[in-house]
Amino acid sequence: MKTLKKVVLIPDSFKGTMDSTEICSIMAEQIRRHQPDARVVQIPVADGGEGTTDAFLTAMEGKKVFLPAEGPYRENMCGFYGLVDGGRTAVIEMAACAGLPLVGENRHAEKTTTYGVGQMIAHAALSGCRKIIVGLGGSATNDGGAGAAAALGVRFLDAQGREFLPVGGTLDRIQSIDLSGLCPALKGAELIAMCDIDNPLCGPQGAAAVFGPQKGAGEATVRVLDRNLAHFAEVIRDSLGRDVAELPGAGAAGGMAAGMVALLGARLQMGIETMLDAVRFEQIAADADLIITGEGKLDFQSLRGKVISGVARRAKKLNIPLIAVVGDIGDNIDPVYQIGVSAVFSINQIAVDYSVARTRSRKDLAKTIDNLMRLFSVC
Amino acid sequence: MKTLKKVVLIPDSFKGTMDSTEICSIMAEQIRRHQPDARVVQIPVADGGEGTTDAFLTAMEGKKVFLPAEGPYRENMCGFYGLVDGGRTAVIEMAACAGLPLVGENRHAEKTTTYGVGQMIAHAALSGCRKIIVGLGGSATNDGGAGAAAALGVRFLDAQGREFLPVGGTLDRIQSIDLSGLCPALKGAELIAMCDIDNPLCGPQGAAAVFGPQKGAGEATVRVLDRNLAHFAEVIRDSLGRDVAELPGAGAAGGMAAGMVALLGARLQMGIETMLDAVRFEQIAADADLIITGEGKLDFQSLRGKVISGVARRAKKLNIPLIAVVGDIGDNIDPVYQIGVSAVFSINQIAVDYSVARTRSRKDLAKTIDNLMRLFSVC
Repeated sequence: MKTLKKVVLIPDSFKGTMDSTEICSIMAEQIRRHQPDARVVQIPVADGGEGTTDAFLTAMEGKKVFLPAEGPYRENMCGFYGLVDGGRTAVIEMAACAGLPLVGENRHAEKTTTYGVGQMIAHAALSGCRKIIVGLGGSATNDGGAGAAAALGVRFLDAQGREFLPVGGTLDRIQSIDLSGLCPALKGAELIAMCDIDNPLCGPQGAAAVFGPQKGAGEATVRVLDRNLAHFAEVIRDSLGRDVAELPGAGAAGGMAAGMVALLGARLQMGIETMLDAVRFEQIAADADLIITGEGKLDFQSLRGKVISGVARRAKKLNIPLIAVVGDIGDNIDPVYQIGVSAVFSINQIAVDYSVARTRSRKDLAKTIDNLMRLFSVC
Repeated sequence: MKTLKKVVLIPDSFKGTMDSTEICSIMAEQIRRHQPDARVVQIPVADGGEGTTDAFLTAMEGKKVFLPAEGPYRENMCGFYGLVDGGRTAVIEMAACAGLPLVGENRHAEKTTTYGVGQMIAHAALSGCRKIIVGLGGSATNDGGAGAAAALGVRFLDAQGREFLPVGGTLDRIQSIDLSGLCPALKGAELIAMCDIDNPLCGPQGAAAVFGPQKGAGEATVRVLDRNLAHFAEVIRDSLGRDVAELPGAGAAGGMAAGMVALLGARLQMGIETMLDAVRFEQIAADADLIITGEGKLDFQSLRGKVISGVARRAKKLNIPLIAVVGDIGDNIDPVYQIGVSAVFSINQIAVDYSVARTRSRKDLAKTIDNLMRLFSVC
């Protein structure tokens, strides 16, 4: 019997069936059945959207901080973020104050604000966090992050030089931007915007065109929002000399990525890299006997900066076996072995269509891990 | 990297997709890719039907013997069997001289004979074989093995005391049976009838009712064949004092099993046990690092004397890891671990219906073994 002293679990969600926290928990249960003495470290991978804070808090010691903040329509509500790394790092999910579920059916991407997200960032900065991670995703907004910037002291001025709080529908009224009042506590802090998409700010692949409709924007509104974001980028360029029009990922979360980069000095980063850095993956995994990752479907796209490839590259450097347990296995996956995946197993236990398979996914995942652990026990 | 010195492959067929020889060959190819120095022993499990001789010849050193013999309609043809174990053991598949493919569309279970099978048995016995294995399955006959027995010297007499060669439609004319002329060479030999079914000779679950229709028998003919087999059993009881009416499996291959047991002194045995004994599994597997078995579907039925459970019980005694690589995995398979299966893996790589999955089975099997070997390489 091979004894596993430490196993690190770092799966992505299986889109449409299980989130990464649940996957970790199912895997951990099976591992403990066969290896009761193994230390099982769970790092459910967050994608920046709802659940990102909880995912970090599962992976790292820390606490959840609650604060009064404003919602998408500037209504009073309770915001929250995670404080980890002994209080040095904050993990904020923008969905906490600007998320789509907060507006219910009242979806108006042209009216909503990210102001509350700025309040959470300010709270974290003022609490002494030197690293602030903001998960972009699941937003109801299209304000280019102007609201968040305003909450942090950035001033937006119209043609008459009057300060105002721009939303998606009024970004075109910005004539100039004044960064002089930016919250000083933010200056020394590292601000990271977690973002897994590479959509540009404007145009047919931009924030408004691609994500506007799900935030309630009809065709006409999408055109307005898109034009306004383009105007916003021009003002940023003219006022601040920064160009976000061509930045890949600038279109994430209604242009929040663009605003964070241009106005707040944030850095865009893939969710998996952000998590691997934050949890200090190399330190955690260095003495592991085994790492298990996973995702809904492993295919050639898995190589393009997604979870499995991110984990694989680091596991390979550490020379630790990495098993990918996935839903479906696509064709031509040989490159994944080269980047560090030791072996890939599908959870599919019987030949049935996905419509049936998805209803069995928890059981099938458990069975797959069960059998892998059985194999480890004898081989 | 774990080096595998020896791997034993002993899979059943995946019904409807791959026969066991092909499965062995796909598995072996993947194993050799990762473990080029491993000795890979292939034991494709035969079920007694067409391909049984070749399966034994894959698993054991030996040669194929050809001989003139008679077909289902007593036409001249070429029979064959396998000579293994240094010429001491013969492996005969009855389908070679009495198989359904030999009659084409000319299916008449009431007219066909197993005479040629008796000729092959005689040839083997006269060649000095001390163990003769006869695979029952895939037959076009319903003669209760009377034809084979006749070829070996058994005399069937009618009411007038005249000798004749009974077929399915004329078994009712047998009045007495005379074993005195039985081929003397057979007497010291061990005769084994390989048979994986437990249907009785007669009745609703008997040879004629269950297998008659696929051999061309309509309802009326089935009734005649069934009644004739019952008469045959009565004569056997009255003439020889042997009772095959209640023997489980006696109905295999048109009652061939009954005739072999009652008239030739054969022993009925499960295919897997026959193979495990013939190849001297314990000797072959004793120094293996790994045994891989498999079947189309692993479920609670797998426990009832089928391939996986047969292999598992012996692997467990030898204390060698046994992986079952299967098509589908049924629910509640926990007992298979108790009888000796170390771990079970499905070859299903994507969630698709069986109609699609079966077209991918070769690739999926290869991929599954590939990944298991990759896992062995790092763990």
